[in-house]
Order: sequence, then C-alpha cells, then structure tokens
Amino acid sequence: MRRVKITLAYDGTDYHGWQVQPGLPTIQGTLEQAVAEIEGKPVPVLGSGRTDAGVHALEQVAAFTIVNRIPLPNLRKAMNRLLPPAIRVLSASEVPEHFHPRFQALAKTYEYRIYRGETCQPFERFYVHHYPYPLQVARMAELAPLFEGEHDFSAFAASDEKDERGGSKVRTVFSSKLSLQPDRLIYRVTGSGFLKHMVRSLAGTLIEAGKENLGGAEIGEYLRPGCPRKAGPALPARGLFLVSVQYEPDAGTP
Amino acid sequence: MRRVKITLAYDGTDYHGWQVQPGLPTIQGTLEQAVAEIEGKPVPVLGSGRTDAGVHALEQVAAFTIVNRIPLPNLRKAMNRLLPPAIRVLSASEVPEHFHPRFQALAKTYEYRIYRGETCQPFERFYVHHYPYPLQVARMAELAPLFEGEHDFSAFAASDEKDERGGSKVRTVFSSKLSLQPDRLIYRVTGSGFLKHMVRSLAGTLIEAGKENLGGAEIGEYLRPGCPRKAGPALPARGLFLVSVQYEPDAGTP
Repeated sequence: MRRVKITLAYDGTDYHGWQVQPGLPTIQGTLEQAVAEIEGKPVPVLGSGRTDAGVHALEQVAAFTIVNRIPLPNLRKAMNRLLPPAIRVLSASEVPEHFHPRFQALAKTYEYRIYRGETCQPFERFYVHHYPYPLQVARMAELAPLFEGEHDFSAFAASDEKDERGGSKVRTVFSSKLSLQPDRLIYRVTGSGFLKHMVRSLAGTLIEAGKENLGGAEIGEYLRPGCPRKAGPALPARGLFLVSVQYEPDAGTP
Repeated sequence: MRRVKITLAYDGTDYHGWQVQPGLPTIQGTLEQAVAEIEGKPVPVLGSGRTDAGVHALEQVAAFTIVNRIPLPNLRKAMNRLLPPAIRVLSASEVPEHFHPRFQALAKTYEYRIYRGETCQPFERFYVHHYPYPLQVARMAELAPLFEGEHDFSAFAASDEKDERGGSKVRTVFSSKLSLQPDRLIYRVTGSGFLKHMVRSLAGTLIEAGKENLGGAEIGEYLRPGCPRKAGPALPARGLFLVSVQYEPDAGTP
C-alpha cells in the first residue's frame, strides 16, 4: 500500500465545491474517479479541507492510498490525462501511511482578489470580485492586521457552519494583510484553520470598513467571544483562492 | 443619426465566432441585441472583421448607427449592463457617418500564445495553446520575420476561405515576431488583413519549423504565388487574440 500526497490547482467555477455530492460535479468526486480509474477500484481522496462552490485553488493538498506501483511522475501524468483541464495535479509524492492532509495541516493561506478598475477584463471575470466603487483603501490596509491572533470568529462564519472542532469557533490567524496594487486589492490571510465563509467574510468586513460603515472598534466587537452579531457579508466565491497548505517539514516525507 | 465606434474585449470561448448565425451565440449577435435594447429597434453592428469560434479579442472595433441621444459614457455603461461579462465595451466615441470599421482599417495586430510548461494552469486553459514538447525556439524566432512583406498567403488560408477581395489572397504583413518568454512563446503579427485561419497557420508553421520539419526554404516556397501546398496546420482557436485594429488618425474622429 502506498500513501500518495498530491498538490493540485483548480478552477472552481464549474464545480459544486470540494466535497463529493451525489449527482453533482465536485473536485473531490472528480479526483476520486481519476484515481479509481488508475487503481481499478474506488479509492477515497481526502483533502486538506473543503472549498466552496466557485472557489479556486493554486495549491490544494490531497492524499489517497493505492496498491498500484506506477512511478509517481507517471501517476501525475496519468491523473492529468484523466482529469478535465480545470483540475491539474502539480506534484505527487509518497508519504507515511498515517499522513492526513487535514489533521496534519499546520496552516492554510488564502487570497481574496478584488478588481477595482471600471471594466473587468472578460478573461478575469471568474477570478476576481469586481468592485469599482469608492473605497478608503489605506484605511482597509491599516485595519486588516486586526484579525491576527487567536479569536472567536463566530461573527465571520456562515450561519450553517458545522461545529467540526467540538463547537469551538476559535481559530488563530497568523497573518492578515491587504496589499494595494494598481486597480486591485489582494487580501492574503494565513491561519490555523478557517470557518465556512470566514475568509470571504473577513474580506467583506474590510470592504465595509473601506466604505466607512465600520472601523477598528466594530472589528474589535466582532472578535469578542460570543459576539452575537454578524460581521461583513461574505464576498462572492469567484475572488477566493486557496493559495497553499503548510505542514510540518517531515509530514510530507516518508 | 449618430455613428458610434466602440472598442471591445471578449472571451470567445463560449461563442460561435463574431458573425451572426441564427440560433447560435455569436459576438455580433449579442452586441446587436444589446444595441437594439437601447435603440428600441434592430440595429446592425459592423465589426473590423470576423473572429472564429473560440478566438478572443483584447480590442476589437465595431460601429453602429443610432438616433438615441444617450451620452457616450452612459451608452458604454448601458451596453455593459446588457452584455454578458464575457463581452466588455471598453470605449465608445462618435465618428463620421461614413466610418466603416472594416473597409477603413489600415492594419490589424494578432497575438498567438503558446504555453510551454509541463502543466498548464487551469485559469489559462482557454487562453493559451498548450505545447509542452521540445522545440527549437531560437530557430522559430529567427524564421518568424520571413512572413513580413507582400505575399500570396494561399498556403496559409483555410480551404473554405472566401475570396472577399476579388479572389486575391495577397496580403501585406508589416511585422511578424516571435518573443521567447519564460515558459511561453508569444507570436505577434501585424498586417493589412488576414485570410481565414491565417494567423493560426503562420503560428502552426513556426511550430513545424521548431520541430525541424521545415525551414526557411520551405517557408519561401509557401509564400510563392500560386503555391499549391498547404503550410503548417492551424493551431487551436483558444491561443489567438485580436490585439488591436489600426485606422487613419482622422478615421475615428468626427
């Protein structure tokens, strides 16, 4: 038995998110079909976490166990031949049998991309949130690091967020930065884990701050344990990219 | 009556090319629907030329005549509200009544994009031709300017090319350059006009040269008047972009 870790990029536009759903195209379901084709029987593929419908990945991590002895470069090529061009396996490596892409992840980095120009290029329409209206961007950049630290992020979670970690909505954000680029804003956040819709809601909260609908005091309120209110609305999925997943240096080597 | 010139960008992936075809989504048909909505009656929209199914445009030029007195910036915004995000009007200006975007065009520039890396990013899959195999790229760059000048380009035309200019397949290529970038080749060509599939066939011929299947002598043969043979095959539509259309400085001003 071989435990294989893969990194993959995908365009989430035409998928109903990561997780298998009967009768709907999902990233996990499509990967499982490809691996089953190679292995000759059904193989579960585990991811570092779910991404929602329409969310993209630059370097998602997944793992599965097979008996097939196909060399890793050939496995990667075979998967890319079987997968649609919207999903690409970037690398494949062998890892210890106990490797679990979700439980062993130390941190994840997401990026939310906002296009500020008046007319969004057709070629970018599925990969940015188009927001051409006035914003106090310097203020947004100043407030972005307020999310750093260990906080109860209930106010930033979808109302149907499942209590996966015994109900706790406490997460640690290691880094939260907004970078101002010509015609666009790139919000990049690294954390121990994220609640459903959390990154999109963090970015949405910064937009509200840019519209001067709220400031540092309100953000402080949202981050207080048990805050009953909801923070900024979740921005559309199309602007969100899972950038990378970080592991212990030895987690990915046999 | 106002003659309006627009520049527009489009993602050709989901369209059956520029030209109106009954029952099929086309760029021209979609533009005509939007203008008809504004004008309250059918309005023909003329383009600088056709683009094939799947071909993109960074700055196509089109024109139409309306009586509606809506200010130009509002006209542009109204069109973008009515058009799908795959088609964006970049600018709108008023031009003399006799302005014809095709007959008055002096030159057009196209770009063909080839991705050479092993794995093509999902986000680029509709916008490049993926060719990860060995190529003598320096040789291709050296041969690209051979297409410059006035030549009979019959060998580079689709077999169903219509004889629009009294049967002549003579065109003038002002500039033909291949630029070598990390992991990609960008072929850029400017000419007086192009036959059907011509740019894709010029790029395909350069690929054949890169595979050492032909050289300067064969390209010279293809360019001889009445050459009965067909040059390199037309590469896929997805890598092709209409970059811009050039007019006399006064053609676009009333």
